[in-house]
This record gives sequence, structure tokens and C-alpha cells, in this order.
Amino acid sequence: MDTKAKSEGFGGGDVARRARLMIRAGEHRGHTAGLAPGTIQGNLCILPADYALEFAAFCQRNPKPCPLIGMSEPGDPRIPALARDMDIRTDLSQYRIFRDGELVDEPFDITDLWQDDLVTFVLGCSFSFEEALLDAGIPLRHIERGENVAMYKTNIDTVPAGRFHGKMVVSMRPLKPAEAIQAIQITARFPGVHGAPVHLGLPHQIGVDDLEKTFAGDRPRMKEGEIPVFWACGVTPQVAVEQARPPICITHAPGCMVITDLPNSSLAVI
Amino acid sequence: MDTKAKSEGFGGGDVARRARLMIRAGEHRGHTAGLAPGTIQGNLCILPADYALEFAAFCQRNPKPCPLIGMSEPGDPRIPALARDMDIRTDLSQYRIFRDGELVDEPFDITDLWQDDLVTFVLGCSFSFEEALLDAGIPLRHIERGENVAMYKTNIDTVPAGRFHGKMVVSMRPLKPAEAIQAIQITARFPGVHGAPVHLGLPHQIGVDDLEKTFAGDRPRMKEGEIPVFWACGVTPQVAVEQARPPICITHAPGCMVITDLPNSSLAVI
Repeated sequence: MDTKAKSEGFGGGDVARRARLMIRAGEHRGHTAGLAPGTIQGNLCILPADYALEFAAFCQRNPKPCPLIGMSEPGDPRIPALARDMDIRTDLSQYRIFRDGELVDEPFDITDLWQDDLVTFVLGCSFSFEEALLDAGIPLRHIERGENVAMYKTNIDTVPAGRFHGKMVVSMRPLKPAEAIQAIQITARFPGVHGAPVHLGLPHQIGVDDLEKTFAGDRPRMKEGEIPVFWACGVTPQVAVEQARPPICITHAPGCMVITDLPNSSLAVI
Repeated sequence: MDTKAKSEGFGGGDVARRARLMIRAGEHRGHTAGLAPGTIQGNLCILPADYALEFAAFCQRNPKPCPLIGMSEPGDPRIPALARDMDIRTDLSQYRIFRDGELVDEPFDITDLWQDDLVTFVLGCSFSFEEALLDAGIPLRHIERGENVAMYKTNIDTVPAGRFHGKMVVSMRPLKPAEAIQAIQITARFPGVHGAPVHLGLPHQIGVDDLEKTFAGDRPRMKEGEIPVFWACGVTPQVAVEQARPPICITHAPGCMVITDLPNSSLAVI
């Protein structure tokens, strides 16, 4: 579908809109990686208004793991600044429902769960900066292998906000030193999708004693002559939500992201 | 005082702390430009919790005029992430009180006005990027002349959020073309203090028909061979507050900024 849409000369917004309509119609299930290439995909977090101000503050104080790229009005399932015709209740391929911090369901549609006080937050995700790294010729092992990036829970405290707090989760990509330097330069330009790495080279300093023991994702498959490079990860807010235990929280299912109309390049600050 | 503190070898945080203590003790009145050089100063906006989520969304949607660098817990007059011992009720040299969107008072202390539901927002201000421009040898006319930067209300709509909406206000600095190019490169590195310019060269396109007629600040004193370069301005949220008409809103008085402990360099994204 991507290829077809591309060959017909649609802009990023049209490709993204077609992907959302396909998902809305139930014609696409599962991961959205590679769908609507070139457009920003994001992490989803929907919370009741009573928790929304605290979560906004949590994002403001922790911009690397929680880069806020969109926020809805309370009760409004649309975020026109991200995608003109998106309906957040139907346009993700799968959701996760947390009640009091516990995962209770993974539905394909949340229309029945919608409440007038729900506020939607969309956070940048690493898909965008990975595209920039690949464009620069930097190979990413987990993508080559068709696996999920390795993730670790660190000993780094996030800055708390109200009921939201917890340790920072990071994703790790093994890179040669020269690639690591280039990757730092490239990702620094994209603060809206986690920005520059938070650590490299000495995992034990951030509480990661064994790279083979991931918190989520697949084993990293490090090779000789590579160093581990760690970026703040969008799983961090999920850990904070488990601590805050809101009566309801709706997120994307892993890999089933919010597809926006915005080109990845719109996130570059320089 | 700056010079003395500097010559004693205090870090930025100590210089900033001394400045705040001096203000708290009533020993400094008026502008804070040049006080605690090298540290970030910010715009202040304090709102009741009922308006805070909407204002957070307004900042998220309008990051160039409203770069949010700090947010308090409701009712808490401290923002430890910006300055460890700051008390927002006493540490600004002058405040402005707006009731229902109307300016009603300009006190030197807001302790008596404090409420348990007030949320403090601190937004980056242009002092930080002006320091970076001066460091790069780019002359700034209003600083040379000891005047206020020229500000204009444009025809550019901000992205509304709840009750907050209005036109964008910009500040303008006359620069030679080569300086303008360099200034764009430098300020793009500082999205936390308005970032890259929003316009240059053709003022009528943004609704500015006469550069001599400023919305605020002094006349710009353009010279032959210069072009006008426009940055989003922290007066924009004040215009939005006038539209939203909250029962109470407390801001800094012009030029009497929040003095943080953070070095200007901490705002650079690359």
C-alpha cells in the first residue's frame, strides 16, 4: 500500500490518511512500522482530565523520554494539529487499557470507552529518528533482523510531577564509535523524538549490569568493536502511569502507533 | 554585584541565588537584564488550576512564542528544577496582576495573593538567545542604545487551546543579511527561548505595515542595508490571557524576569 500510494505521487499526509482509514476500516492489524513512511508516528497516552495537568507537567520535566508533540482538548477525540481527520478512538491498530495502573484489555477500538473528560497526549517515538539514522547510512541491527529494539529500565530517576514518577526506560542500539558520534549529531536535531542519547559506553553507570537481560524488546546482538548507545524511551511514561494508577489510561499497543500527517523533517530543530 | 560575584568565582547558580536573595530583601528594583549573566531568565505566568491544563496545551501547541521551561505543582510556590531555593512569590522584582484579563496592580510581592490552586509556568525569554548572538559578535541595536526591543502584533494566529487564543506577538531586530543568516543558525539551537525566527524581510506579509509603529518597546532604528528579522515573543501568552480572562493571572512586570540557576548553555539542543 505504501509503495502504491508513493508511486501515485501522494504527499505524506495522504499516505498517512490512507493508512489511518485502512486501520479504521479494520483492514490493517498489528505494527505500523513502515506504514506511511516519512511521517511522524507517536506514542499514545489518554488520561482523565484530573490526571492530565500532572502528566503535562511530567512531560515538560522529562522531555527526553516524554517529548510531547500533541495534546487534545478534554473530551475531544481529534488532534487537528497532528492530523486533520484523525479519530483517536478508531485510528490505531490496537490499544491497551490500564485500570488503576493494571493492564486489563487490548482492544482494536476504544469508541465504547470514550469519556467526556479524557485528554489525549501524543509523544514522539524513535521511528522518526531511526529513519534519519538509516538515511545517513547508519545500520540498525534490530531493524536488519526484524526484531524489537532492546530496552532497559535504568537507575535514572525521572523528575516527578504529582502522582507520576519512576525510573527512566531506555532503548539501546549497538554502534561502532564513529557511527555513535554521527548518531549523536543526527538525533540531537530531533528533540521531539527523544533527541540526543542519554548515555553510551558504560551501561553499569545507569544500572544496566547485563545487556542480555532486557526489560522489553529482543536481545541486542552486540558485535565486537561496538559500543552500546542509549536513548530515552517512550516506555518511560507507561512506567510512570503504573505508579500514578489513574482509574483509566489508554495507550497504544506496542508498535501500534499514532500515525500523523506531519513529515519527520518537521521535527528537526536545525 | 555581578562583577563581584563573578570575581569571587561563584558558579552561575550562586550568582543567580544572590540576585534572587537581593530582590527578596527589597534591595533590587526594576529590570533584571544583566543580573546573573549566563543564567536563564524567564517569563512568568501564574494561573488557577482550572486554567492550567488549557494553558499547558496552549504552550505545547505554540512552542515558539511559549517555550515552556518550568511548571510548578498546584499551590507550590517553588520550581526546584529551575532554581533550588526560589520562592516565586517574592523573588521577582515586580509583578503584574490581571483579574478577568485586566491589569489591576503591579506589586513587588505576591505572598498575600497566593492561593492553593495556583500553577506557575515559566517560559524562556529572549535574554538567553541575545547573549548567544552578542557572544557571536552580532550587534543588537536596542541593547547598544539601552532601549527595549521593538515588538509588533502580527496577523499570525496562534493555535488555540481551550479559552486561550490570539495573534502572535513578535520582537524584531534589524540585522545585515549575513548577520541574519548567522543569527538564524544560532537561535535555531535554542528552541527553549523562542528558537529560530518566524519571519524576515517582508513585514507586510505578517501584517506589520509600518515598522515605526510598535505594539510595545522602542522604535527599531533600522539602518540602510539592514533587514528586519522577527522572532516569536513572550508577550504572546499575555495577549492570550487577555482573551481567556481568568479570574486571576500573575505575570512578571516587563523586564522583571524569573532568574533561574540554569546556565544558558543548558538550553542548546546541539
